[in-house]
Amino acid sequence: MSSVRPLFETADSTRLDFNTIVPDRFDPEHLVRQFCQVRQTTERMVAGLSPEDQNLQSMPDASPLKWHRAHTTWFFETFLLKPHDPGYQPVNEHYAYLFNSYYNGIGQQYPRAHRSLMSRPDSDEVGSYREQVNDAVIRLLESAPVNKLAEIAATVVLGLNHEQQHQELMVTDLKHALSFNPMAPAWTRRPDPQGPAAEQGWVDFSGGVVTVGHEGRTFAFDNETPRHEVMLGDFQLARRPVTCGEFAAFMDDGGYERPDLWLADGWAWVQNHGIEAPLYWQRSEDGWMLHTAGCWREMDPHEPICHISFYEAFAYAQWAGARLPTEVEWEIAARGEPVEGQFADSERYHPASCADSGRLVQLFGDVWEWTASSYASYPGFRPAAGAVGEYNGKFMANQMVLRGGSCATQPGHVRATYRNFFYPADRWQFSGLRLARDTA
Amino acid sequence: MSSVRPLFETADSTRLDFNTIVPDRFDPEHLVRQFCQVRQTTERMVAGLSPEDQNLQSMPDASPLKWHRAHTTWFFETFLLKPHDPGYQPVNEHYAYLFNSYYNGIGQQYPRAHRSLMSRPDSDEVGSYREQVNDAVIRLLESAPVNKLAEIAATVVLGLNHEQQHQELMVTDLKHALSFNPMAPAWTRRPDPQGPAAEQGWVDFSGGVVTVGHEGRTFAFDNETPRHEVMLGDFQLARRPVTCGEFAAFMDDGGYERPDLWLADGWAWVQNHGIEAPLYWQRSEDGWMLHTAGCWREMDPHEPICHISFYEAFAYAQWAGARLPTEVEWEIAARGEPVEGQFADSERYHPASCADSGRLVQLFGDVWEWTASSYASYPGFRPAAGAVGEYNGKFMANQMVLRGGSCATQPGHVRATYRNFFYPADRWQFSGLRLARDTA
Amino acid sequence: MSSVRPLFETADSTRLDFNTIVPDRFDPEHLVRQFCQVRQTTERMVAGLSPEDQNLQSMPDASPLKWHRAHTTWFFETFLLKPHDPGYQPVNEHYAYLFNSYYNGIGQQYPRAHRSLMSRPDSDEVGSYREQVNDAVIRLLESAPVNKLAEIAATVVLGLNHEQQHQELMVTDLKHALSFNPMAPAWTRRPDPQGPAAEQGWVDFSGGVVTVGHEGRTFAFDNETPRHEVMLGDFQLARRPVTCGEFAAFMDDGGYERPDLWLADGWAWVQNHGIEAPLYWQRSEDGWMLHTAGCWREMDPHEPICHISFYEAFAYAQWAGARLPTEVEWEIAARGEPVEGQFADSERYHPASCADSGRLVQLFGDVWEWTASSYASYPGFRPAAGAVGEYNGKFMANQMVLRGGSCATQPGHVRATYRNFFYPADRWQFSGLRLARDTA
Amino acid sequence: MSSVRPLFETADSTRLDFNTIVPDRFDPEHLVRQFCQVRQTTERMVAGLSPEDQNLQSMPDASPLKWHRAHTTWFFETFLLKPHDPGYQPVNEHYAYLFNSYYNGIGQQYPRAHRSLMSRPDSDEVGSYREQVNDAVIRLLESAPVNKLAEIAATVVLGLNHEQQHQELMVTDLKHALSFNPMAPAWTRRPDPQGPAAEQGWVDFSGGVVTVGHEGRTFAFDNETPRHEVMLGDFQLARRPVTCGEFAAFMDDGGYERPDLWLADGWAWVQNHGIEAPLYWQRSEDGWMLHTAGCWREMDPHEPICHISFYEAFAYAQWAGARLPTEVEWEIAARGEPVEGQFADSERYHPASCADSGRLVQLFGDVWEWTASSYASYPGFRPAAGAVGEYNGKFMANQMVLRGGSCATQPGHVRATYRNFFYPADRWQFSGLRLARDTA
Repeated sequence: MSSVRPLFETADSTRLDFNTIVPDRFDPEHLVRQFCQVRQTTERMVAGLSPEDQNLQSMPDASPLKWHRAHTTWFFETFLLKPHDPGYQPVNEHYAYLFNSYYNGIGQQYPRAHRSLMSRPDSDEVGSYREQVNDAVIRLLESAPVNKLAEIAATVVLGLNHEQQHQELMVTDLKHALSFNPMAPAWTRRPDPQGPAAEQGWVDFSGGVVTVGHEGRTFAFDNETPRHEVMLGDFQLARRPVTCGEFAAFMDDGGYERPDLWLADGWAWVQNHGIEAPLYWQRSEDGWMLHTAGCWREMDPHEPICHISFYEAFAYAQWAGARLPTEVEWEIAARGEPVEGQFADSERYHPASCADSGRLVQLFGDVWEWTASSYASYPGFRPAAGAVGEYNGKFMANQMVLRGGSCATQPGHVRATYRNFFYPADRWQFSGLRLARDTA
Repeated sequence: MSSVRPLFETADSTRLDFNTIVPDRFDPEHLVRQFCQVRQTTERMVAGLSPEDQNLQSMPDASPLKWHRAHTTWFFETFLLKPHDPGYQPVNEHYAYLFNSYYNGIGQQYPRAHRSLMSRPDSDEVGSYREQVNDAVIRLLESAPVNKLAEIAATVVLGLNHEQQHQELMVTDLKHALSFNPMAPAWTRRPDPQGPAAEQGWVDFSGGVVTVGHEGRTFAFDNETPRHEVMLGDFQLARRPVTCGEFAAFMDDGGYERPDLWLADGWAWVQNHGIEAPLYWQRSEDGWMLHTAGCWREMDPHEPICHISFYEAFAYAQWAGARLPTEVEWEIAARGEPVEGQFADSERYHPASCADSGRLVQLFGDVWEWTASSYASYPGFRPAAGAVGEYNGKFMANQMVLRGGSCATQPGHVRATYRNFFYPADRWQFSGLRLARDTA
Repeated sequence: MSSVRPLFETADSTRLDFNTIVPDRFDPEHLVRQFCQVRQTTERMVAGLSPEDQNLQSMPDASPLKWHRAHTTWFFETFLLKPHDPGYQPVNEHYAYLFNSYYNGIGQQYPRAHRSLMSRPDSDEVGSYREQVNDAVIRLLESAPVNKLAEIAATVVLGLNHEQQHQELMVTDLKHALSFNPMAPAWTRRPDPQGPAAEQGWVDFSGGVVTVGHEGRTFAFDNETPRHEVMLGDFQLARRPVTCGEFAAFMDDGGYERPDLWLADGWAWVQNHGIEAPLYWQRSEDGWMLHTAGCWREMDPHEPICHISFYEAFAYAQWAGARLPTEVEWEIAARGEPVEGQFADSERYHPASCADSGRLVQLFGDVWEWTASSYASYPGFRPAAGAVGEYNGKFMANQMVLRGGSCATQPGHVRATYRNFFYPADRWQFSGLRLARDTA
Repeated sequence: MSSVRPLFETADSTRLDFNTIVPDRFDPEHLVRQFCQVRQTTERMVAGLSPEDQNLQSMPDASPLKWHRAHTTWFFETFLLKPHDPGYQPVNEHYAYLFNSYYNGIGQQYPRAHRSLMSRPDSDEVGSYREQVNDAVIRLLESAPVNKLAEIAATVVLGLNHEQQHQELMVTDLKHALSFNPMAPAWTRRPDPQGPAAEQGWVDFSGGVVTVGHEGRTFAFDNETPRHEVMLGDFQLARRPVTCGEFAAFMDDGGYERPDLWLADGWAWVQNHGIEAPLYWQRSEDGWMLHTAGCWREMDPHEPICHISFYEAFAYAQWAGARLPTEVEWEIAARGEPVEGQFADSERYHPASCADSGRLVQLFGDVWEWTASSYASYPGFRPAAGAVGEYNGKFMANQMVLRGGSCATQPGHVRATYRNFFYPADRWQFSGLRLARDTA
């Protein structure tokens, strides 16, 4: 309704890339610059939003943006300042309870589903909280003894990667919340239409004993390690993700009414929730309309299909006579490809078509791609010691791995070994799929 | 936590009293003054609150204060301006959907449980909506043709009484929402402590054929009519409401663990929800603490028991060897008593004790009193024509009548014939009880 | 599917009539005969049913027939034998827990919703339980000291009335359970079709101070007392209940889609449960089909409408420009009319038309008639002492009174003062309505 | 309570072993003998049970035994007789709907949660259904043309394996249902106590590229194929499953109160359901009591822990400083071990201790062992064509693999490649765990 500042207006000339940071040999000044950049990005994201916008929570899985702003701050306070700055005084004793997400090792947590019931601290107070913690972190980085620097730097880098993850959630959570407002408020500019999708095709990959996982020199989350060997058969991956137009063909062919295409749990989900289309699709007289950050607009058959559950991805693949790739296949195929995309820009349509039909395109920065792999620990996986060890390991049940990165992901945040994970019914992320099949 | 302006800071020298307004013979200027006064009271109530405070919704039964501000405005727009002002242009076409509470005759309604998902219109936009409608109403009152004046005045007076009801809900809904914040934010000043409760005793009333209901000359809600005769036995009413100290004795005697004291549905409610005390009571090392608008403070045994359900009121009366009064008994006893109390001031403790032990005290303005009467139509009841007829009649099932008025009720709003009604399990209103018994 | 013995095959020449029993002056032999007759009726009702049939429970509100057989036996064991027979040994110590329905004064109860999980005791063991208790009761009646006889007789008569109530529930609960079986099993013979419905019309009644409630000489439930005076206006009652054909006209007129006809809670119930027709109605190519005890058969427009909720009864009355009668109006009108009907025979259609158009017909024995009165205690009501006092009083909240009696009611069980009560959404009883209106 | 025939009284001298059947080269007479044996085992299992016992359903996941008897019969009717016997007339047209479990390719299904609402067909009618289908199957086997024999035999063998799976479910479902009866009915004999548990220890296994999956010559379920290579690290498996005594030490150490030991979903499950012990454990004055098929008896610290969820197995392993094995590790370790155990005998304690400490014991026939592997398709997996292809593949989401076999599994039914699967919260199966760890 009202005109809003775009979320990400400034084209950063110096985009962050954590994939090039080596914690052992870092430059404190550089780290302070990176710290400020990530922290400012969060604030820029909410600059055009009202206090009420920032306090919306449309489901227990999503959180108010104000809460994200405070929680990412609490993370630095809890895992960096309290352990490493002896004189640090917490900004408010209640925040340890209010802004702890799920770290049982730290203490109790305010009930997740009630986060929008925190009108206090208000938006300004959270802004002040952020500034006080920023100052303390910068002071710590500038004054830390040499023998502590590596550990401090590692925690800062973890905190910045953590904040980037929440920046993506801020986009998805706000999009979900605003979809409940019948006035269809826009909160960023409408992206320009793009050209047609790249031509589809299959790219061959050879199997054998392959090595996957992060090598460990630069930053990675613990769940990407340890690097290990896997036996793999020959396989093919589709050049690009499935498009909205292709998915609409599945729908026109009765895809949502044919139990033979679905996993049993997926079919039950379709029946129990009356699912008939991807999230944010609405039938109108002129065809399908899509709710986006910029507006409701007509579905473009060339853009990647998005906001589908694992169940829908699986059913589509069945219908297409193919399957989902495993996460190992995806990683092997993506390794070496440039981490390019429209990251953190807007909800984009699709890349310009690409001349070289032998290469995969749109691996990073368009949509997260559901894989056939359940989220599990790599052989020999050891979570970090202490409460921060709850970061990843304890979620290794009932969720599926997604690979790639979406238009809401921060640039520089992802890599070929990066493992995202959500429950099979989750749809509010920018989640799509790429087909795979066994080499005949 | 932060210091807040008291909600009701100005002592109005000219308190409204709708019980003295005779719609047939009213003075337009006077009505404009009353209109402005009621509308300004609503805005004064939220003056110290942040946009986030105003958008809280802690349960489907409660609404955000911003929504109350908009809904009461929509009421004038819908039932006054649209029918009576041919040139009126609605402020926003979406508001008819967003701010309709339950009037099916008007159209669909935004889902009640999702009201806090409306970040837009924001608090300022709602303020502007209120001003535009105020201007239009005043213009209409100042320019209405003489032959329409009575009907217009009746609708304005209904709208003002309606807004006063929502002013009370604003207090109870905000209190409920803030109780979820562990930082215990205060939002009005703490009331001064009062002296001891009035001495308890029984007052005798004679039965026979009595006449109840509103006589109809001044304003009353339709549910107070028609006036009619009822056969009544002799009865006694307690001088004053039950106090917190008396209710605590019931609790100490195992009141919440003895099924023999409870209605079957009440006992199921106690079991299913783990009820152990009135709403807003919390056990501490120093005894019971009560959440109030001003703070968490110690329970004062002299103040009236409050925030109890009908089930708790019933169980207490059983335990005390008495019963709840019927609404007819209450009305007969209250008729003629002055409508005095601490209305709309704060959460008060209790009145000073009263020398005349033969009279009932605290009938109005302390706590709503649960009666034994289910909410039903009076013989010959006819709701108003059109959608405004949905105001009262359609709720005449499953609810119980409360009489009196509470410290959150607007002064001048209630009278002896006034019928409030809530579901038997509701507790977020300022609801208490007064005992009754048959004359031996 | 298979041929089943009719439930009530023997035309009893000596029908029980508790309305003629005066506990003070009873004949032990006569009481023994009555006792045997009621107890045998229960057993005859299940004679054609398999053990699985008897153990069905289709919702928490309904119970397995085997449980009804055992619970009514437990009633005599608990309230008669244990207090009055010093040497009595309970048949099984577990039964006090398994077969207590809701008497908290007696002890804990097996969870109501799990009653069908009691495979043991099996059907034969329950039969043996019944016989052992029968023998003990008869022995007690034959040997009781004279000074105890009145109290013992009163308890026996209460137990027999209690069992008759459960006999009606056995019909309604089994009907509900069998409706889940797509093979549509019949469990009694199909009743013969009847002639057309009686001509409809209004019968006038004069108001004033009237006396209602049971006079207390013969048996009555405590909730029918005390007899008391009520002020009543003039009113009219419809000659006969509303028919299926009349209700179908309401449906054809969009009755289930018009919120203006419904109470707010009723409309929410319609929306939340997708209600489109009375219970047991199913649309077929040939029109409406009704599930009955005997079969699925075509709806007969002349039979009384049945299996509707209070909400549906209210909406129909609104649509018809009338209202529901209060229970006082019903009682005044029914007093003096013969208690005749098709009791406990089958699901009947309607009585033969009646020449005398000035009289009410079908008051008893066709369908229970929803009234506008919520179920509440009469002025001065005192429940019986002890656990048996839980019989009626504790249900006096959230339920509505029904008057009359249905085709599933035992002959002799009801009278003009009899008060039945169910929740407004309940439909599995044989519940219909009769219209009322104020005298113009 | 009453004395019941043991479920499995006859020691079969000729135990079935499907692991030795080669469908291509089978002997029809032999297959008829096997068919009769499996079908008779089902009937012997219910011989001592009442019709009510057979119709119990305590949760949607479990089914009445009568339903199992009918469903396994429907399987032969649907997948064998209808396709292969042109003259076959279904016993009852309704059964296709009532007894289809989840085969959407066949048609609609009666709602799973309502299976105990089928009182008809009754137990005898289901017995007759079984006999009619048995006769038809035997006639088909004896008269089938040679060129159809292999396909017919394969379907018969699948149907028999299917029935054996349901025989295990009959044990677990009945055990669950009877646990709701406070009279603690026994339904089989109490097993004799056994000696102490085998000494615990670690057995080493070498990794590398290993081959897993069924080789395909004899019968296997489709989910065991295709055979394929996997890269595996060195690992160690515990000699025997964890015992009740060891699990009790975990409980005494606060295992159920320490979130650090649990997966996030597991901890939520513990909190939401108030889990404090394995299923069927009840604290008494004399220590833990266990509900078994034979009685409530004292927990024996030497018997394998049983009736635990995946979450509990995971938490125990965390506490013990170990982990769960993957299904590949389990299969590699079990391959070559004899498939011995107490199958289908009773709820046994544990095997006699074993002298050779270098070998794994109790792999088969005591408890199913939770693995760390989610249930997924093997590379190149292809389900069977047609509706029977719904047998396994569509369940490959959200479930975890269990390996081994339990005391309720039929002898000859399992093998090293066998994959059982349940949801992580399921506990009503005989599920336990064996520890694993990486070789240091």
